[in-house]
Amino acid sequence: MRYELYYWPGIPGRGEFIRLALEEAGVDYLDIGRSPAPGHGVPAISTYLDDPEASQPPFAPPFLKAGDIVVSHVANILQFLGPRLGLVPEDECRRFWVQGLQLTLCDWLGEAHDVHHPLGASLYYEEQKDEAKRRADVFLGERLSKFLGYFEQVLSRNPEGSDWLVGTSPTYADLSLFQMVAGLRYAFPRAMQRLEPTAPAVSALADRVAARPNIAAYRASKRCQPFNEQGIFRHYPELDG
Amino acid sequence: MRYELYYWPGIPGRGEFIRLALEEAGVDYLDIGRSPAPGHGVPAISTYLDDPEASQPPFAPPFLKAGDIVVSHVANILQFLGPRLGLVPEDECRRFWVQGLQLTLCDWLGEAHDVHHPLGASLYYEEQKDEAKRRADVFLGERLSKFLGYFEQVLSRNPEGSDWLVGTSPTYADLSLFQMVAGLRYAFPRAMQRLEPTAPAVSALADRVAARPNIAAYRASKRCQPFNEQGIFRHYPELDG
Repeated sequence: MRYELYYWPGIPGRGEFIRLALEEAGVDYLDIGRSPAPGHGVPAISTYLDDPEASQPPFAPPFLKAGDIVVSHVANILQFLGPRLGLVPEDECRRFWVQGLQLTLCDWLGEAHDVHHPLGASLYYEEQKDEAKRRADVFLGERLSKFLGYFEQVLSRNPEGSDWLVGTSPTYADLSLFQMVAGLRYAFPRAMQRLEPTAPAVSALADRVAARPNIAAYRASKRCQPFNEQGIFRHYPELDG
Repeated sequence: MRYELYYWPGIPGRGEFIRLALEEAGVDYLDIGRSPAPGHGVPAISTYLDDPEASQPPFAPPFLKAGDIVVSHVANILQFLGPRLGLVPEDECRRFWVQGLQLTLCDWLGEAHDVHHPLGASLYYEEQKDEAKRRADVFLGERLSKFLGYFEQVLSRNPEGSDWLVGTSPTYADLSLFQMVAGLRYAFPRAMQRLEPTAPAVSALADRVAARPNIAAYRASKRCQPFNEQGIFRHYPELDG
């Protein structure tokens, strides 16, 4: 069975959190939104979303097809993939802990997005620049250090060492934390230069993920799309403190 | 074992989604934040969040203690409780479907909150009233009907009937959809009066949940806290279209 990822092409976006798990595990998957094959690409996503026969219609991408199962939402997809890709511990207690961390990462991601779209995703950034500036002040002044500090604390309290968030090997939450750091470095380089030194274990984890062979090979490939100003992490210098 | 819910007292808030599941199932639980017992109440929550010995510190309430397990985040707690309280179907495919719906409900809840706090939760509403008005226009003009229409579609496509979102009995996602509708009716009565008739199956589901004996008894009890202007769903007439 080949996993099929449905996500809009052109941005790393939320789809990237799924790609990183699939790439780390080295499994075969099809990135439907980016596939040039007939019937693939954006039309395949729209067709699926608009299919009046679908009994389990996703609200929005990303969603993942795995044989007969369709799973939507980043955290839900990762929870589905975790045991199948060896990216969560065995015991149930730790799995709920990993998923709690993932949901915190998803909240952080949502806040990073809302910095440039505080009034709504359907308005252009240019229509909400003043509001974005005020929201950026709150995000960079309070929230960024709060989230960084939280994950620094989680790492420092891992009884099995501070290399990974949970246990002694990477979970999907570690891959997602890497992506958060990468995105924040892109969007807010000045703020991250100031704040990242306050979270050295987070910083080291991000570098540790980047150095993993499958992740490094993926990021050097054309499968990996760069950040840009259409995505969740956008670099607008005026919002960078 | 008695479940212990940790959530700020004084508002239904995110904790209500957990309470509804526990109440529907009729299990014994302790609402720590509202308990007058020595060592309970807000200090118990703060103590837990600030405990330097905690190896799995939650980012924020709500979190649930069940014996040795601590689970945080609404959707994660409900996923933990679902099988234990008989509030999800047996098969795995449907459980991921229920959880996808729950995460969509959580996104909707976040958007309902951000209507009155578009720039950040740390600023007072009075500091962002103009921005809230603009965000309310987007929420009421686009998002509310999109979410209502989505859940209407999910209900209409349930192959086993439109009484519940999945299968033929209520899941935790149905209870959460009820709470969303109840909160939206409180916060945006004018908008809901206009839009709810476009989603009759959603409306009927909310009434069906409200009529369930355990839910009705809970809502008539002092355990159930009313909506107010400190919570997620706030009634500010100027934001109601």
